[in-house]
Amino acid sequence: MKRKIIVLVSGGVDSVCALHDAAANYEVVAGLSFDYGAKHNHREIPFAALHCQRLGVRNEIIRLDFIGQHFRSALLQSGASIPDTHYEAPAMKQTIVPFRNGIFLATAAGFAESVGAKAVVIAAHAGDHAIFPDCRAEFMDAMSQAIGLGTDSGVEIVRPFIGLSKAQIVQRGQALGVNLAETWTCYKGGERHCGTCGACVERREAFSLAGVTDATVYFNCE
Amino acid sequence: MKRKIIVLVSGGVDSVCALHDAAANYEVVAGLSFDYGAKHNHREIPFAALHCQRLGVRNEIIRLDFIGQHFRSALLQSGASIPDTHYEAPAMKQTIVPFRNGIFLATAAGFAESVGAKAVVIAAHAGDHAIFPDCRAEFMDAMSQAIGLGTDSGVEIVRPFIGLSKAQIVQRGQALGVNLAETWTCYKGGERHCGTCGACVERREAFSLAGVTDATVYFNCE
Repeated sequence: MKRKIIVLVSGGVDSVCALHDAAANYEVVAGLSFDYGAKHNHREIPFAALHCQRLGVRNEIIRLDFIGQHFRSALLQSGASIPDTHYEAPAMKQTIVPFRNGIFLATAAGFAESVGAKAVVIAAHAGDHAIFPDCRAEFMDAMSQAIGLGTDSGVEIVRPFIGLSKAQIVQRGQALGVNLAETWTCYKGGERHCGTCGACVERREAFSLAGVTDATVYFNCE
Repeated sequence: MKRKIIVLVSGGVDSVCALHDAAANYEVVAGLSFDYGAKHNHREIPFAALHCQRLGVRNEIIRLDFIGQHFRSALLQSGASIPDTHYEAPAMKQTIVPFRNGIFLATAAGFAESVGAKAVVIAAHAGDHAIFPDCRAEFMDAMSQAIGLGTDSGVEIVRPFIGLSKAQIVQRGQALGVNLAETWTCYKGGERHCGTCGACVERREAFSLAGVTDATVYFNCE
């Protein structure tokens, strides 16, 4: 019998690939997407829902309105403009949503316990940037321990992509037959990917390094 | 200059006393209350708001609708009836809301970081029951570490009442001049405290052990 798990699926490249990867290895009880007032939520969540639907996986969109209302970040509709910059540049710090992964993982842990799932899959990867405190390995390890101790059934955090770069995730996605054009990355949340925000720069670089054709249409990169 | 903190304030005895205690020792940037679909939220939250107002503290009511919609617990409006039982009886397990403290603390950590607060006060105490995994000291320690690592400013969890019993918290509240009749405990959320659910039994016992007159009107204990 396959292990029952929950997958955090934003609709970006990493989490969509993690969803398909998980569907091949586990019983995915649900894919959770979070609507937290980010500028790009309305662009990425439909892709999360689409991939769940294709795989026959329940998709739940969890509203975390308090983040958009009270938190300070350029990533939020309530925040400043998204900087055009490299994804490792200090300016990217403006796009941090404080403790976002902690809130997502805590929510998913409670959800998992309620539906009898034993683990939560998050698409953290080797290229996650040190600029985001809640992406670092030390945080993930401590949070995993907290969730294990704080749930009756000892829910675990699983990071299947922790040894992969974003380029390797793109390759994995292609091997799994995922249509990567059906994912969303751009922080600005416009009609098309901008191509110049830190997230778009990283996406373009990942496809290029992976040697995989990038079918994404970028607004600023004709 | 006093340390800037956030207080989790449900409107129960423990958290209301913790709020008053914190107001005497710190700069309380906000008192956070969570509306998560519990049967008694509409009874307890007004007391949280009242005490914040008296102390001149900003009160924010954070809606976590996903808990009421998706989580399984007798404490929720969506759940089974609240059992009449001693608070240490196995039946109380039905009232666990999976990873509730984890979700509250994660949310408060992100909020704290957004408003420049350095710590989150939670009214965990020595009598918290082993039946609730997310009340145990091991969980709190791990969660505190996760929050410290996952926030840019290293937000801390502070538990000023961890060495006190609930009876000692009642005594502390009285010493601080708190009107303890203006708090809510009963899990059933009726017009008056029932007096017979595990939470009411614990409340009555705490006042009795503290030697403090309990002005609460209990429905089943005329």
